[in-house]
Amino acid sequence: MNIGLLGIGTIGSGVFEQINQNFGKFSESSSIPAKITKVLDKDLTKKVKNAILTDNPDEIFNDNSIEIIIALMGGEEFEYEQIKRALENKKHVVTANKAVIGAHLEELSELAKKNNVMLRYEASVGGGIPIIKALEDQIRNNEINEIKGILNGTTNFILTKMIGDKVNFENSLKEAQAIGFAEANPESDLKGSDAARKLAILSSLAYGKVLKDEDIPKRGILNISTTDINEINRLGYTIKHLAQSINKNNQVNMVVEPVLVKKDNVFSKINNEFNLISLNGDKTGELMFYGKGAGKDATANAVVSDVLDIINALNNNQIIPQPEFENDISTNFDEGIEGRYYLRVDTDNSRRFSLSDLMEILEDICEIEHIHTSEGSILILTDSVKQSDFEELIEKLDLPENEYFFARILD
Amino acid sequence: MNIGLLGIGTIGSGVFEQINQNFGKFSESSSIPAKITKVLDKDLTKKVKNAILTDNPDEIFNDNSIEIIIALMGGEEFEYEQIKRALENKKHVVTANKAVIGAHLEELSELAKKNNVMLRYEASVGGGIPIIKALEDQIRNNEINEIKGILNGTTNFILTKMIGDKVNFENSLKEAQAIGFAEANPESDLKGSDAARKLAILSSLAYGKVLKDEDIPKRGILNISTTDINEINRLGYTIKHLAQSINKNNQVNMVVEPVLVKKDNVFSKINNEFNLISLNGDKTGELMFYGKGAGKDATANAVVSDVLDIINALNNNQIIPQPEFENDISTNFDEGIEGRYYLRVDTDNSRRFSLSDLMEILEDICEIEHIHTSEGSILILTDSVKQSDFEELIEKLDLPENEYFFARILD
Repeated sequence: MNIGLLGIGTIGSGVFEQINQNFGKFSESSSIPAKITKVLDKDLTKKVKNAILTDNPDEIFNDNSIEIIIALMGGEEFEYEQIKRALENKKHVVTANKAVIGAHLEELSELAKKNNVMLRYEASVGGGIPIIKALEDQIRNNEINEIKGILNGTTNFILTKMIGDKVNFENSLKEAQAIGFAEANPESDLKGSDAARKLAILSSLAYGKVLKDEDIPKRGILNISTTDINEINRLGYTIKHLAQSINKNNQVNMVVEPVLVKKDNVFSKINNEFNLISLNGDKTGELMFYGKGAGKDATANAVVSDVLDIINALNNNQIIPQPEFENDISTNFDEGIEGRYYLRVDTDNSRRFSLSDLMEILEDICEIEHIHTSEGSILILTDSVKQSDFEELIEKLDLPENEYFFARILD
Repeated sequence: MNIGLLGIGTIGSGVFEQINQNFGKFSESSSIPAKITKVLDKDLTKKVKNAILTDNPDEIFNDNSIEIIIALMGGEEFEYEQIKRALENKKHVVTANKAVIGAHLEELSELAKKNNVMLRYEASVGGGIPIIKALEDQIRNNEINEIKGILNGTTNFILTKMIGDKVNFENSLKEAQAIGFAEANPESDLKGSDAARKLAILSSLAYGKVLKDEDIPKRGILNISTTDINEINRLGYTIKHLAQSINKNNQVNMVVEPVLVKKDNVFSKINNEFNLISLNGDKTGELMFYGKGAGKDATANAVVSDVLDIINALNNNQIIPQPEFENDISTNFDEGIEGRYYLRVDTDNSRRFSLSDLMEILEDICEIEHIHTSEGSILILTDSVKQSDFEELIEKLDLPENEYFFARILD
C-alpha cells in the first residue's frame, strides 16, 4: 500500500520516520505492508530517504498506486483543495489540519461518503491525545452533554509562564515562539480561533450537528495584568484559557475564553503545552483525556494511528463510516454560559469610576460577592449572572480595552 | 442477535437497561438489532422485563440463538468456568471481571482465538474509562514504557475522606461501604489485590507478555496514622494508593503501594471513586485517562461499548483479534522501583529507637534529606534509594506493624 505525504515540516517528518524508517512498530502493526512513496513539499532540498520528493501535486494525485494521502501542510485554502481533490480521486485522507476540518467537516465527510473512501483527523484536536476516537466510541451509547478543554498549547504555555514563573506576557510569548509552540503570527492562538476550531470539531461530533467555529464567541488571553495574576492567586484560583460547549435539551452554547479555576481543580494543574479535554456523558459522568497538545512525535503518532485504522479497515474490506450530522440542534451563542465573574477595573488611568459608582451599575444586573481595591484597581467577584447580561454591563461601562479584564469562574 | 446476561446485580441491571430498555441509544448504534433474551441469576424474584430469568446456566448455553454472553456475576471460580464454557461453545464474551481476566488472560485469549470468537473486558479496569481500547490502540505504534494508576475506587475514597475531611480510617471505610463503594469484605481493595489485578491486565497488554497479579508486591493503606496525614500535608504532599509498572529494556517492575504525591501533581487532585490512569509512551510522552472507576451506569457503558464492538465486527464478518503475549519480557519485582521515601517510626510505644539510633541505621543505606520528631514519632524523608534496600532496612528495624508507616515519594 503506497502513501503520499503532503508537507514534510515538523509533524510530516515525524510521520515519515514512524511509517518509513521503522522508528515505530508500524510495519508489525499493519497486516498490509505500507510505506510513503512520494512526498510533496515546496522545499526540494529536504531529505526523504527511499521516497520521491516533488513540488508538483499532480505527481502524487495521478499515481494510481497511492491509495492514502496524508495532508500535513497546514494553512487553509490550498490544503482544503488538496484534500477535496484526494477524496474526489477516491484516495483515503488523513489530516491534522484543524482549520480545514473545522471549516469544512460536513462537506468533506459527504465527499468521503460519496466516493466511498475514509477521511480521518485524529491529530486535528489535542495533538497526541486520542480524543476523536474516544469521542466517536462514546457517542454510540453515552450521550455527551458538555465538553470542556484546554485545547491550545500556546496560550496554556504563556499562562503557565506568566502565573507560575511571573514572566510578563511579551517574554512568555517570545519563549513560546523560541521553543516552537507559538507561530511567528500567533494571533489565531492568542485570540482563541485555534481553540474554537478544535471545540467546533469535537462539538460537531458529540452533538451530531455541524457547528462552525467562526460563530463561537471567543476572548483571548490579552489584557491579563500582573494585578489580575496576583489577585486571582490570592483568591485561590488560577487562570486558564478554556473552550467549552454545553448541550442542554438540544440547545448548544459554546465559548472560548479565559476562566478562573480553583486550585484544587484538575484543570488548574495542566501546564505548558499539555491539553486536557473533559467529556461529560449521561452514562459516564465526567471522562477526561490528557496529553501533549503539540509536538512532533506525539502528533505524528495520532496521524499514524489514523493510517493504521484505514489500512486495517481496507484489510477487512471495510470502510470506517463518516459521522452523521443530522441531529436537531439549535445554538444560542448570544446568551452564553451563566456563571460567577471576576472583574478588574483600573481606576488610576481612566478614573471614571469610583467604588460606589461601579457598585451601583453592577448591582443592577447581579449580586456582588466580593469587592475591594488594590493598586489603582477595583476588583470584584460577582454572584451567578448570565454571560449576555454581564457582557452588556461591560459594554455599558465602555472602558478602554487595556483598563479592565474579566473572566468567568469555572465552578 | 440474542444476548445472554450472567448476573443482574448493580452493573448487570445497568447493562440490561442500556441494551434492552433503550435507556441508551443502543438500538440506533448497532446495525444488527440485538437484545438480552435470557438472564442468569440465583435470585428468581428479580424483574427482567421482556427477558427470561433463570438460575440454570444450561438454559443459556444450550440456546443456539444466543451469540454473546455478558458475564457480570463477579467472584472468580464460577464465572471463570462460565466464561470458558461460553468460549468453548463459540459464544462471544464480554466481562467486567478483573479477577478472572487478571488470573486467566492468556488462557482465555487462546481459547477465544481457537474458537474464533471474541473476548472483551473494557470494564475490568477503570470502570467507565475507555482505557483498554485506548491502550490497544496506542500499542500499535507508541511503545508504552510506564503505567501509573489510581485504579481502586475504595481506597481512593477512603484516603479522600481521611485526608480531606479528617475522618478516621474506620469511619471512612464505613461510609464507603454504606455508599456501595466498598464490599462487606473489603480486604482485596484495602490490601491492594484489586489494584494489582487491574495493573496486571494493563501491563500484560502494554508490554505484550502476561504478567500475573499474584506476583506483584502490594502494600495497602492500613497503618496510615493521623500523624502521617498531618505531616505529609505539612510537607506539601498528599497520599495516594498507586499501581505502577515500568518497562525498562524489557525488564518489568510492578508495585501497588501508598505513595506521596506533590500537591501540584494531577494525581493529587483525583478524589473519591474516580480513577486516573497514566500511560507513558515513547512517541506521545504521558497520556492520562480519568473517570469514574466504579458505579452502575458508567461501568455498564463500558460493557455496552464492548458489545457494540462485537456486533459491529460481526456485521462486517470480522473478528476483533485477541492480544499477543509473545514479547521477551522478564520481571524483577524484588528490586522494585527506586525513589525517595517517607518513614514514620513511633517512639512512645516501642521506644526502641532514639533519633540517633535510627539515623545510624538509615545512613547505612541512604542519605537522609529531612528528619524531625513530632508527637512521639520520628519522621524522615530519605534521598533516592532502591526499594529492595529500603525494605531490607524496614525488616532490620523489626517494628510492630502499627508502629511505623512508609511510602515512596512519586517524583
